Amino acid sequence: MKTMSETRAGTGVSPPTKKLQEPTYEGDFVLGEPLLLDCGRALAGVTLHYAVYGRLNAAKDNAVLVCHALTGSALVGSWWPEVFAPGGVLSLDHDFVICINLLGSCYGSTGPGSVDPETGEIYGPDFPLISVRDNVRAQAGLLDSMGIGRLRLILGGSLGGMQALDWTIHAPERVERAVIIGVAPLSAMGLALNHLQRQAIEHDPEWAGGHYLPQRPPQQGLSLARQIAMLSYKSAELFDERFDRRPNRNGEDPWGLDNQGGGLIGGRFDIAGYLDYQGMRFNERFDANAYLAIMRTMDTWDPLRGSGSAEEVFGRIRARLSFIGISSDWLFPPQAVRDFAYTISAAGVDADYREMTSAHGHDAFLAEQAELLRLIE
Amino acid sequence: MKTMSETRAGTGVSPPTKKLQEPTYEGDFVLGEPLLLDCGRALAGVTLHYAVYGRLNAAKDNAVLVCHALTGSALVGSWWPEVFAPGGVLSLDHDFVICINLLGSCYGSTGPGSVDPETGEIYGPDFPLISVRDNVRAQAGLLDSMGIGRLRLILGGSLGGMQALDWTIHAPERVERAVIIGVAPLSAMGLALNHLQRQAIEHDPEWAGGHYLPQRPPQQGLSLARQIAMLSYKSAELFDERFDRRPNRNGEDPWGLDNQGGGLIGGRFDIAGYLDYQGMRFNERFDANAYLAIMRTMDTWDPLRGSGSAEEVFGRIRARLSFIGISSDWLFPPQAVRDFAYTISAAGVDADYREMTSAHGHDAFLAEQAELLRLIE
Repeated sequence: MKTMSETRAGTGVSPPTKKLQEPTYEGDFVLGEPLLLDCGRALAGVTLHYAVYGRLNAAKDNAVLVCHALTGSALVGSWWPEVFAPGGVLSLDHDFVICINLLGSCYGSTGPGSVDPETGEIYGPDFPLISVRDNVRAQAGLLDSMGIGRLRLILGGSLGGMQALDWTIHAPERVERAVIIGVAPLSAMGLALNHLQRQAIEHDPEWAGGHYLPQRPPQQGLSLARQIAMLSYKSAELFDERFDRRPNRNGEDPWGLDNQGGGLIGGRFDIAGYLDYQGMRFNERFDANAYLAIMRTMDTWDPLRGSGSAEEVFGRIRARLSFIGISSDWLFPPQAVRDFAYTISAAGVDADYREMTSAHGHDAFLAEQAELLRLIE
Repeated sequence: MKTMSETRAGTGVSPPTKKLQEPTYEGDFVLGEPLLLDCGRALAGVTLHYAVYGRLNAAKDNAVLVCHALTGSALVGSWWPEVFAPGGVLSLDHDFVICINLLGSCYGSTGPGSVDPETGEIYGPDFPLISVRDNVRAQAGLLDSMGIGRLRLILGGSLGGMQALDWTIHAPERVERAVIIGVAPLSAMGLALNHLQRQAIEHDPEWAGGHYLPQRPPQQGLSLARQIAMLSYKSAELFDERFDRRPNRNGEDPWGLDNQGGGLIGGRFDIAGYLDYQGMRFNERFDANAYLAIMRTMDTWDPLRGSGSAEEVFGRIRARLSFIGISSDWLFPPQAVRDFAYTISAAGVDADYREMTSAHGHDAFLAEQAELLRLIE
């Protein structure tokens, strides 16, 4: 693939280097009991990889849980550094911040790349469906082990916000406040986008039903999946501003004939070069089976499914909730986030809705942290 | 692929059976001279497949050209029957309607599946880039052969509208009026969507760089490409209304484990079943190389590229233009269509803008013909 050798120096697209916050501790926690999953299976020897920042006080009442989004990691100080900046939401002089890698991910917690203790082989495609609630149950075990009864705050965007809300539903006495960004149950359009991504991976000749060789992962498929996702994380407005209809910056000619003299493919536009580059970068840091696992965690999240009325489900919540929608988000449109917040508020919950104005689309909670933090204050 | 055996009876998704208009004549026209293409190559023995409806009058001043969209055909009476309905835009008592299949397509005009007279072999991936203007030049040759100097009206949506506008720019004396629906040069988001579709086809193990065997076409890839396109032709609102988060109607369980006992894929949601079905249907009617060819025709269309100022390019237009934007279209957003119409109007052209309110997205010009026709009247 020609995309694999490309660099895009000076694109202004990669996040600028920021002062990163180092964790106080980063390590693994192993659950003592098998985790009984919503899908009916039990997962033995569950490992949670986590990071903490700051110090837990003697009263153990200064804990904050940050839940990461789809392909994030426990290192919140690296991907969300500005929450720790002076004047930010969190202060390491006062707060003890915990971030736990999602089950199914490839950043340390148990996932498809882990060894199944029952078979002695890696799970691969046999890794079970993990619900958001399964994650909350496992995370609660880690907090128990730290002696933390109650969280001052839970904070998360996207799949991270889904975890935050599930915490307030399933452990209502343990959460004081939750900030939930860009979240509603995935719409039909969102489910469609994930369906396309799954196919992109499944169609890769190397995928082999998930039994691919570690040295030959389904890179083309994972790249295309990531590119599909990137469209839904950004906005048309941002793409026009950054790329417009310009030819790819490496000098390709979209109006010319291609290298073979034919005309079916041709030179790329700049947006195409950008997307290919994002796909390549994603292959360097993520695993295809893990990606499939966490996509399904997101797809299947719907707090009201089979759980009774909104009053029964959301009525349990004791935390104060703030929902944040992003004006240009078309994966979780602001109207959907607002409607979801209203449904929860109508169930008697102390929930408000705030809107972030940004051209960055769904990614704004990562791309425009300063703006986000102003809203949370 | 499990998608290939599925049927979706009673989906309400396929267009209802309509009274189709039969053409007066359907046939081929062969250009006498090689067609000199904008890309620099010449195409010999160019065939245009076309259909006509009604009769050309003695004065030859009742001709209307309908230009079809990306994967359409010359049989406008089949895909746009309501323009011929009583009270519609066209009347076969008075009008002589011509529709010509695009070059590069697989519905009769010269395309990648045609034999290159120079080599005696099919073009395949060596088929050259065809511009919209190349199509206009070829189409003008067909009209010349019919003795038609001037068109009363040109009508087209999407890539059809791009042809309509190019007619008014490059043959200004030959067009009286043009109705152009859902058109602007493709945005960065539009280019991105086509880039994803190309990759879906290129990644198919059967594609073989475009030299696939007729009995083993890249069906998975073409299906995925079509599914990506379907997202951009419809709207999130329509998907929510039709599919919401329901499981696939065949009884699959998105929350269950899949057939192999693993949890990476799982049962499909209804929107996924719909998309797979659309991909399967598209494989029955379209060729992958032809699809790549016409996508590139659309990608590269930009009347202002290398042609001077808007005043110089659009100032040539003599026709009266009407642009129509569709409220829920996110492939060609109504604001973009309106801005494009204003740019053309500001160049001194008699151009107006009208907006169609519809939840159907870009496809509304095909899905809600009655509403469209009310706007054109």
